[in-house]
Amino acid sequence: MTNAVVHTRIKKVAAGNITDASDTLATEDPLEIRLVHGPSHNRRQQNISVTMRTPGEDMELAAGFLFTEGVIRDQAAIQEIILSEDDSGSVATVHLKPAIVAQLGNTQRNFTATAACGVCGKNDIAAIHTGVSVNRASLRLAAAQLFGLPAILRNEQALFESTGGLHAAALFNRNMELLLLREDIGRHNAVDKLIGAALQQQLTPLDEYILLLSGRAGFELIQKAAMAGIPVIAAIGAPSSMAVKMAAEWNITLLGFLKDQRFNIYSGAERIDVK
Amino acid sequence: MTNAVVHTRIKKVAAGNITDASDTLATEDPLEIRLVHGPSHNRRQQNISVTMRTPGEDMELAAGFLFTEGVIRDQAAIQEIILSEDDSGSVATVHLKPAIVAQLGNTQRNFTATAACGVCGKNDIAAIHTGVSVNRASLRLAAAQLFGLPAILRNEQALFESTGGLHAAALFNRNMELLLLREDIGRHNAVDKLIGAALQQQLTPLDEYILLLSGRAGFELIQKAAMAGIPVIAAIGAPSSMAVKMAAEWNITLLGFLKDQRFNIYSGAERIDVK
Repeated sequence: MTNAVVHTRIKKVAAGNITDASDTLATEDPLEIRLVHGPSHNRRQQNISVTMRTPGEDMELAAGFLFTEGVIRDQAAIQEIILSEDDSGSVATVHLKPAIVAQLGNTQRNFTATAACGVCGKNDIAAIHTGVSVNRASLRLAAAQLFGLPAILRNEQALFESTGGLHAAALFNRNMELLLLREDIGRHNAVDKLIGAALQQQLTPLDEYILLLSGRAGFELIQKAAMAGIPVIAAIGAPSSMAVKMAAEWNITLLGFLKDQRFNIYSGAERIDVK
Repeated sequence: MTNAVVHTRIKKVAAGNITDASDTLATEDPLEIRLVHGPSHNRRQQNISVTMRTPGEDMELAAGFLFTEGVIRDQAAIQEIILSEDDSGSVATVHLKPAIVAQLGNTQRNFTATAACGVCGKNDIAAIHTGVSVNRASLRLAAAQLFGLPAILRNEQALFESTGGLHAAALFNRNMELLLLREDIGRHNAVDKLIGAALQQQLTPLDEYILLLSGRAGFELIQKAAMAGIPVIAAIGAPSSMAVKMAAEWNITLLGFLKDQRFNIYSGAERIDVK
């Protein structure tokens, strides 16, 4: 994760004192995602998205983004991903295999996403729901198993410690073993990086796994997890109304305020056994 | 702020117990912003944005969004704003006066923003910087004055208390009197609502005011504040690298980690007097 943080000179003010100091910032920088697709005799390049992200795992981010947005269905759609730099910043160009038809929908999908945006580029709300099916995973977990997850996350979340400015997404198996952890200034990017990594490791569909979110659970994170088949999402922060609504509709177990040996169950309580 | 929160039935798990309970969620729901503009003989309607926001102050949000995105220059550009509901959700239709030319740039600006997205709809990073000029405000503040701001914010931030899921933006004058406070599930919406309210109250340019942010300071918030001429931004959380870079470029004083009688100065230290 080179360049994931930058060091800067600041002035620290405390009571009546001011001192020069150094500080570590979470890097927020643009990544443009381009798509090259179509049959061999008629390849086309399209700008898909610019996202404000923390540099690092840009290939996973690009692959995860295309997957959670429904543009590709699996890792096998991808021929190669080329990272480059141009005048305006970093670029990830995703080349699809010639036989693959990209699912670009009927929307003009050129857009810029801030660090915190996950569903940009669609012209109407109906488009946001595209491609998600109801989760039928039969995973069952004991409540006591879940209590330990925040401590595991915090122990591993090195970048947050230094900057206070990064979100994390972590994937656990049913034995509560940490498989993947990704950090980013944008929570949707952290989830896309995580799911991109899971794609590359051929773990999808993730119907045996638990997604842990370091902060709040907004709608777009539920949508991305749903695309990957994740049946249980636990957030350390609060869920939004739309997150709860869609989790219920998609039969995803959504837990919030997971900390201090407690959590709230917002949907899918049947997957949780409380002794 | 009707509908800003919704009540839901949950199960609370603590240690080995599970109990039925009610909980309050921050509402996250789509608002589509449409623009009607052009000369009287040739009016056009355009879909500008769909943003996931917390309902309430939708007119301020629409006006603030158009202003901070550079589509309009002042409140006088607006003839009227009509709120309505259609199948996909809430709509704010902003009618510009016939003499006004909307600054829609050269980008296709149809997009959906999540609760946390502030600069969607632009095709390249250069477009994000459009319209901001260097801040020349001569405001000077004593450090001791700033220490009290978080307590004022927390006392007034009623919705956060009940949901744990809302961001706040607050505007203070140079005597640290709270003039405006807006809350939203999206931090960029909170800032747009605040600036929209300031526009309607003819307070802009805000070159005598301080913006307080309840959480982290991402780039898009600095950009919006810059459009309104705000010279001092104080965040209770961490700034990003791009926030610091652009604040320095635009000569905005950026303070972070404001709490417990402390803060860090990331740019524009000359506006702060430390005794």
